[in-house]
Amino acid sequence: MMIPAARKALDDAEDIVGYDTYVKMAGPLRLDQTVHASDNREELFRARQAFDLAATGRSVAVVSSGDPGVFAMAAAVLEALDGATDARWRGVELVILPGVSAALAAAARIGAPLGHDFCIISLSDNLKPWSVIIDRLEHAAAGDFAMAFYNPISKARPWQLGEAIALLRRHRVAETPVVLGRDVGRPAESVRITTLGDLTPEQVDMRTVVIVGSSTTRVIDGTDWVYTPRWYGTPPAELKKA
Amino acid sequence: MMIPAARKALDDAEDIVGYDTYVKMAGPLRLDQTVHASDNREELFRARQAFDLAATGRSVAVVSSGDPGVFAMAAAVLEALDGATDARWRGVELVILPGVSAALAAAARIGAPLGHDFCIISLSDNLKPWSVIIDRLEHAAAGDFAMAFYNPISKARPWQLGEAIALLRRHRVAETPVVLGRDVGRPAESVRITTLGDLTPEQVDMRTVVIVGSSTTRVIDGTDWVYTPRWYGTPPAELKKA
Repeated sequence: MMIPAARKALDDAEDIVGYDTYVKMAGPLRLDQTVHASDNREELFRARQAFDLAATGRSVAVVSSGDPGVFAMAAAVLEALDGATDARWRGVELVILPGVSAALAAAARIGAPLGHDFCIISLSDNLKPWSVIIDRLEHAAAGDFAMAFYNPISKARPWQLGEAIALLRRHRVAETPVVLGRDVGRPAESVRITTLGDLTPEQVDMRTVVIVGSSTTRVIDGTDWVYTPRWYGTPPAELKKA
Repeated sequence: MMIPAARKALDDAEDIVGYDTYVKMAGPLRLDQTVHASDNREELFRARQAFDLAATGRSVAVVSSGDPGVFAMAAAVLEALDGATDARWRGVELVILPGVSAALAAAARIGAPLGHDFCIISLSDNLKPWSVIIDRLEHAAAGDFAMAFYNPISKARPWQLGEAIALLRRHRVAETPVVLGRDVGRPAESVRITTLGDLTPEQVDMRTVVIVGSSTTRVIDGTDWVYTPRWYGTPPAELKKA
């Protein structure tokens, strides 16, 4: 699912900077390319490492999964630039190349659950207070948005998803379709449908994106296709002509 | 910005169905491929035409711009399938291939304005009541989401964007960064920055995606980079080490 411009940037780079697991997925790399792999959750370290390399004139690619602009490396790269004390960093020619974010990849596999107004929310309270997340979930639920959750759960954050599910159940019926997309676009990909009533945190891990439908999200009878129609309220007259 | 799987699907298809303008952008096509181009806003007609062709055993590609799952053709295709009276339509092998949606493409060009929680909202009231849109805007604003607006304005919908801007100004300061991305990824691409205080409907047309920052969205001093940091509230300690 990588766009050709991203493939070319990887092919052209002298240095590849990224989370170890994602760098391995970005291959094949050339023997003359230098790989700087680091651990997960070292985003800012990687961003600074990339600027340090690029400031010396090297051509550097920072690897991100999905779309770098959606809970991925682009914000970290710009945080690093914003806080730069090394003037040479400002001289680096920076290009951000978009991609298919996990929610859009999972949505495509199962239909079009994000085919109408939706929110994307990270459930991680590592970098924002849980109270902000709860407030946003309340608004997203009250506004009847479909939602996709990134970073839904981890060993260090075991209870947050359960609280989010409980909140959503106060706003939406138990039959609301839920899509669990895990490792979409990777060899171990799985995408499955459940409902808000049946969803439990045990079905979800940190590599899963969770999509919760709005009040209009539907499963097509007898199929595994889930979609949120383009219309809201009254279906358009042309639909009746089917 | 088209993913290789989408390129391959287009190359492999016998019939290409789509909005005339987008079909032209999807080229090059082969002389032995049959093009079924239709006017804009004929989504359901195109979806049904594609199923009719595919039901006869033809290999059909339905062209969409951006990501078909985000205010594009995938929902229309599934609405057609959901309402199908022709049993052969159920037998069609359907694959939806994701892409880079306009908001993500525009965001990448200008930085990472959608690097934190965000909403995507269509401002078109063709298929949903304006009251629903206003309610969603209120919730998105109160929840301090960054937002991207699709279908922000058209000749038939001249006043809605102005009302949306007025609503947002009651929640966010005039300095809030706004990104206007037009025809991103196409030859006439333009991406520019303004503020919520300066934004007027005259700056926007139907080919523009409008991104409005949250309270934390920033422009990096002396640059044209806009981003929403990963953190909210208190910046992480590592940021201070820059």
